[in-house]
Amino acid sequence: MDNFMFYAPTYFAFGKGSQEKIGSLIRKFGGSKVLLHYGSGSVKQNGVYDAAVKSLNESGLSYVELGGVQPNPRSGLVYKGIELCRRKNVDFVLAIGGGSVIDSSKAIAAGVVYEGDFWDYFPHRKNVEKALPIGTVLTIAAAGSEGSENSVITRDEGMLKFGAHGEALRPKFSILNPEYTMTLGAYQTACGITDMFMHVVERYFTNVKDVETTDRLCEGVMKAIVEEAPKVMENLSDYQARANIMWAGMVAHNNICGVGRINDWASHGLQQELGAFNDSAHGAGLAVVAPAWMRYVIDHDLLRAAQFAVRVWGCDMNFANPKVTALEGIDRFRGFLDMLGMPRTLNELGVHREDIPQLVEHAKLCCPGELIFGNYVKLYAEDIRKIYESICE
Amino acid sequence: MDNFMFYAPTYFAFGKGSQEKIGSLIRKFGGSKVLLHYGSGSVKQNGVYDAAVKSLNESGLSYVELGGVQPNPRSGLVYKGIELCRRKNVDFVLAIGGGSVIDSSKAIAAGVVYEGDFWDYFPHRKNVEKALPIGTVLTIAAAGSEGSENSVITRDEGMLKFGAHGEALRPKFSILNPEYTMTLGAYQTACGITDMFMHVVERYFTNVKDVETTDRLCEGVMKAIVEEAPKVMENLSDYQARANIMWAGMVAHNNICGVGRINDWASHGLQQELGAFNDSAHGAGLAVVAPAWMRYVIDHDLLRAAQFAVRVWGCDMNFANPKVTALEGIDRFRGFLDMLGMPRTLNELGVHREDIPQLVEHAKLCCPGELIFGNYVKLYAEDIRKIYESICE
Repeated sequence: MDNFMFYAPTYFAFGKGSQEKIGSLIRKFGGSKVLLHYGSGSVKQNGVYDAAVKSLNESGLSYVELGGVQPNPRSGLVYKGIELCRRKNVDFVLAIGGGSVIDSSKAIAAGVVYEGDFWDYFPHRKNVEKALPIGTVLTIAAAGSEGSENSVITRDEGMLKFGAHGEALRPKFSILNPEYTMTLGAYQTACGITDMFMHVVERYFTNVKDVETTDRLCEGVMKAIVEEAPKVMENLSDYQARANIMWAGMVAHNNICGVGRINDWASHGLQQELGAFNDSAHGAGLAVVAPAWMRYVIDHDLLRAAQFAVRVWGCDMNFANPKVTALEGIDRFRGFLDMLGMPRTLNELGVHREDIPQLVEHAKLCCPGELIFGNYVKLYAEDIRKIYESICE
Repeated sequence: MDNFMFYAPTYFAFGKGSQEKIGSLIRKFGGSKVLLHYGSGSVKQNGVYDAAVKSLNESGLSYVELGGVQPNPRSGLVYKGIELCRRKNVDFVLAIGGGSVIDSSKAIAAGVVYEGDFWDYFPHRKNVEKALPIGTVLTIAAAGSEGSENSVITRDEGMLKFGAHGEALRPKFSILNPEYTMTLGAYQTACGITDMFMHVVERYFTNVKDVETTDRLCEGVMKAIVEEAPKVMENLSDYQARANIMWAGMVAHNNICGVGRINDWASHGLQQELGAFNDSAHGAGLAVVAPAWMRYVIDHDLLRAAQFAVRVWGCDMNFANPKVTALEGIDRFRGFLDMLGMPRTLNELGVHREDIPQLVEHAKLCCPGELIFGNYVKLYAEDIRKIYESICE
C-alpha cells in the first residue's frame, strides 16, 4: 500500500427532490452569477433545466446559459464558455447533464481564471489549482465526474483527447436524483454502467501489494453494479436500482477505492483512440477493448485475474490451474457486457482492420515516449496493435 | 434506499512521512495560533508530538497545549480547553491521538465559538454549524473520528455520555501514518479493531430495502478488517496490515457506507452504559454486547442475519433453515472477537448481575421516551435488561 492524499470535498444531495437545493447550494459555495451549461437540450424536455432555473430564481441568482456540449466534449465550446463567463462576470458554473457536460464545465471553470490557454492543463497534466466553483445536476450515471477531480476534453484540431486533474476541479456540490436518469434509453444506460464498472477495473488491476482494504471496496462496488444492472436493464424506470447504480458510479470514481495503489488506465487509453477516430460511445468502446485487454495481460498476474473471477464473478477457484478460473472470470465479465447489449468487436463500432495502423499512429501522438498505455502491464505500439486486431473481424 | 446528504471534506494525508505536512495543512485551512490537544503524554514518548511541533515551527505557527484527555473524554477538560483557546486567541485545534482526543478537540472547537454552554449540542443533538477548524494526527485506528462529523463526550456530573454531530465537526485534515499506530499494545489494538468493525455493523443492520451498493461496501470493509486483523495481532509492527486497518477504520465511519439507510446504534448504546458505569474500554464493551444483541434480534430479519453470515463470514447458506446459517455467522463473529482477545462477559468488564438494574436505570436517563436504543429493532428497558443478563454469569 503506497502513500497517498485523498481529498473529496463534494457535497452530495441524493434522492427525489434534491434539485430543490441547487440555489441554496450555489449560495453556500459563494456563487451569485451562474453559467448554466448543458448538452443537446434534452434537459429542457425532461424538466431538469426548469427545476434548476426555478431553484436559481428562488435563491435570487442570475444566470447565463450555454448549451451544445457533445459526447467527447470539445475544446471549441470550452473556449466559447470561457469567453462568455468573462464577458458576463460569471462566478459559478452549473453543469446540467452527464460526464461530458461536467467535464466541459470543469474546463471552462479552470480556463476563466487562468491567464494562458486552458489547454495548457491537458497534455502536460499540469495540476489545476484554481478554477471557478462548479456544481452539477447529474442526469447520466456513468463518468463519475460529479465526484472526481478529472476532466477529459478532445481538442478539435487533431481530435486529441486528454485529461486534466486537480483539486480545484472537484465539484463543490452534486445533485444526484435517480429520477433524472430514468429517461435515459437502454443503450446509453448500458454504456454508463460499463463506464463506471471500468473505473473500478482500472483501479483493481495493480502491481502494488497489500491493498486488501481497497481491493475489497473495489470488489464491493463491482458486485453491486453486477447485481443492480440487470434490474435497470429489465426496467429502465426502476428507481431503486437506478439509485444504487447512481451511487455506485460516484464511489467508483471519487477514488476512495483507488488510493494507495497504482491504477492502470490502459483500457481507457485504448478506448480513447476509438472515440477520437469516429466519436463512438465511450462505454461501448470500453466494452469492446476491456475483455481483450484482460486476455492479453492474463499471464502477468494469474492470481489477481483469478481473484477478480472468484470474488467479483463468483467463479469456483481451480487450484490446479488458476488460469482456467481467470479465463472464466473474463468470460463472465463478457457475458455481463452481452447482457447490457454492448458490442464485442471494433467493426460494430465502425472501425475496421485497415484502420488499426491509423489508430496506433494516433495513440503515439498522445505519448512522448515509446510506452503508450498502462501501468499494470506496460503497452507499446505493438501490443496495442495486437489487442485491436484480436477484436476485429 | 432513502434520500441523503453526504459531505466529507476532510483532506487525508496517508502514509510514512505524512506528518511533515501538518504545518502547511494548518496554513492551508486558515490556522495561525494552534491548540495542541493530546492525552496521557504517550505522544511525547513516541515521537508524534515532536514531529508535530517541528512541522508547526517550520511553518511559523505558534501554539499552546493541553494534555490529559482520558478515554471516554470528559466535559471538565473541554471547558478548560475552551477557556484556554479564548484566552490565547487560538484559531485552530490540532488533535494528536485517538478518538477520545479528537472528540475532545471537536467539543472544544465547537465551544470556543459558541456563546452558550457547549453541552447544549450534546443531549439535544443540536446540529453544530460553527466551530474552529480542526486537524488530527491519528495514533489509534478505531473510532473513525478523524473522518467523521461526530463527537462523544461524557459529562462529569452523572457520567452521562452523549454524541454531538454537525458539518463543522469534520476535521479539515487528518494525518494517517500507520507507523504511529505500531506502538499500540495488543489489547488497545484489538479494542480499536472491534470498534471500527462495529461502526459498519451498526450501519449494516437496517430495515431499509434496496441498499445493495452500501451493503456491498459495508461487507467489503468488514471483510478487509477480518482479513487484516489477524496479521496485525500476529505482528503488531506489520506496517502493511496496520495501513489497511487504518484506512478501513476511516471508511467504516465517514459514512460513505451508511448513507441512504437508517443505522442502528443499539450496540453502541448498550456499550455506552458500561463505559459510563466504570470506564471500561469502548471496544471491549462492544465485543461483549454485540454478539448478544445479534442473538437477541436474530428473528427480526433472518435473511439479513444470514446475509451477514454468508457474505462476511463465508458461511454456507442453509436454505432449509436460514437460522442455522445466521447463528453460525454470529458464532464466527464471536470467534473473531476471541482471536482478538476480547472479553465475552460483563463480569470480565467488572460489571456483575446485581449492577444490571443500575445500568438499565441509567440508560433511561439518556432517553426522553420509553424507547431506549436501536432502530433495526427498538429496544426498551426490558430488552436491555435481558441482553445484559444473557452475557452475565
